[in-house]
Amino acid sequence: METLSQNRSHGGIQTVFRHASTATGTPMTFSVFVPNHRLGAKLPVVWFLSGLTCTHANVTDKGEFRAACAAHGLIFVAPDTSPRGEGVPGDPDGAYDFGLGAGFYVDATEPPYAANYKMWSYITEELPALVAAELPADMARQSIMGHSMGGHGALTIGLRHPHRYRAISAFAPIVAPSQVPWGEKALEGYLGEDRTHWRAHDAVALIEDGARAEALLVDQGESDQFMEKQLKPNLLQEACEKAGIPLTLRRQPGYDHSYYFVSSFMADQLDWHAERLKR
Amino acid sequence: METLSQNRSHGGIQTVFRHASTATGTPMTFSVFVPNHRLGAKLPVVWFLSGLTCTHANVTDKGEFRAACAAHGLIFVAPDTSPRGEGVPGDPDGAYDFGLGAGFYVDATEPPYAANYKMWSYITEELPALVAAELPADMARQSIMGHSMGGHGALTIGLRHPHRYRAISAFAPIVAPSQVPWGEKALEGYLGEDRTHWRAHDAVALIEDGARAEALLVDQGESDQFMEKQLKPNLLQEACEKAGIPLTLRRQPGYDHSYYFVSSFMADQLDWHAERLKR
Repeated sequence: METLSQNRSHGGIQTVFRHASTATGTPMTFSVFVPNHRLGAKLPVVWFLSGLTCTHANVTDKGEFRAACAAHGLIFVAPDTSPRGEGVPGDPDGAYDFGLGAGFYVDATEPPYAANYKMWSYITEELPALVAAELPADMARQSIMGHSMGGHGALTIGLRHPHRYRAISAFAPIVAPSQVPWGEKALEGYLGEDRTHWRAHDAVALIEDGARAEALLVDQGESDQFMEKQLKPNLLQEACEKAGIPLTLRRQPGYDHSYYFVSSFMADQLDWHAERLKR
Repeated sequence: METLSQNRSHGGIQTVFRHASTATGTPMTFSVFVPNHRLGAKLPVVWFLSGLTCTHANVTDKGEFRAACAAHGLIFVAPDTSPRGEGVPGDPDGAYDFGLGAGFYVDATEPPYAANYKMWSYITEELPALVAAELPADMARQSIMGHSMGGHGALTIGLRHPHRYRAISAFAPIVAPSQVPWGEKALEGYLGEDRTHWRAHDAVALIEDGARAEALLVDQGESDQFMEKQLKPNLLQEACEKAGIPLTLRRQPGYDHSYYFVSSFMADQLDWHAERLKR
């Protein structure tokens, strides 16, 4: 791992690392906050997955997570949202919602994306192994959260690893990508036209197909411009009700889709994670 | 005032405004956070002055001030650091430490800067009048803080208005611009070669010349790369000791000059302001 920057903050250390990923075949950048801790201690790990167009930097700059992570003694890992660099194909039309910055946390099977777009393997296997090896992380105590496309990532990864993540939460997540324009474009582009292959990357479909979680927490701004067309929190609510999954869906009046919204409820979501990580 | 953006955050409203400034003869941009409040209430105002190369956006994105302002019921105003736009002269060599982004909170007297670089009048007269007229602000309860060049601004403006600001604090301020390279370049460029004119814009010189404050609070990172050559907190400490001004100078081990440092102690400085603003 190469250290791109390291700054003391809130009593701990905020670092940005780069490493050569075997999953994506590219250099990958991620940020880690490690709070002040007793030498030799192992700390719980919160994974934060970012949304469309984002890198690790958005939440690192604007997420306001460090004070709460310092208070609770939590490591906070923020990966990038897609592979990048020479030879990595983006959207053919240069759109923001596919390709670079829009990996959708799947392992692509379709050319030309299959070569690099292996974000599922990267987030669930390669990066956790690196974190376990290089940081004072207690991998028996992990949780996952995300924003928008990253909320989709957190929900799908969390639902498919019920014994790994002790808490799963999201800010304004895409809950049913198979049923909305962003998701249909991405899943077809990365996974092909056969929609049966999409179900493993759709939180609502996963729940319909039997995936379960102890609890889910979702904050959704009621003035979010993407809520009705792309996010559709109702679909998650209905699926959880049918499946008997306790979902706390907090509709936040006046909030939009931005980091002004995410940062407003970050400390509160981290409190909820900490409670479950410390049990 | 034109509204450039408005977002709900931490229960209040974060806005970015633009207006035509008579002081600078240019459009000026500033940000304001107004916490949730009872209709008709007037809230105390905290002024935050930013450092070299910054605009209103740096602290607005990375300052982590909203949670504390919401908790204490404080309006937070973050102006730009210089005039900008067509016809505004910058540094002749394009340097970062003079001209655009580096107004140093003075009214320039030297050509070609005297036409636009009237940041002292802008911050102390024009913008307060606008804030008083347009926002639910209690102008009898104001305080001021800043970072680096903005710490210089907060100290000098605060020391010269002892009855206006109930609290004065700074993050890694330039305390004696007459004695350091950044300040010498700026004060000569804006105010001319006669150093007697510089003393009204130098916190240490102001204190030597009789300016007083009830109390000052300064956080300074001990790993700040600019501390020894440009910031020189010792000079403020010595001046305050001689003058009998109670200075709390907190040397923070391991912290650098960045917003990772500023955001770490923002809530704590705002607590200190709130205590004085609520008396």
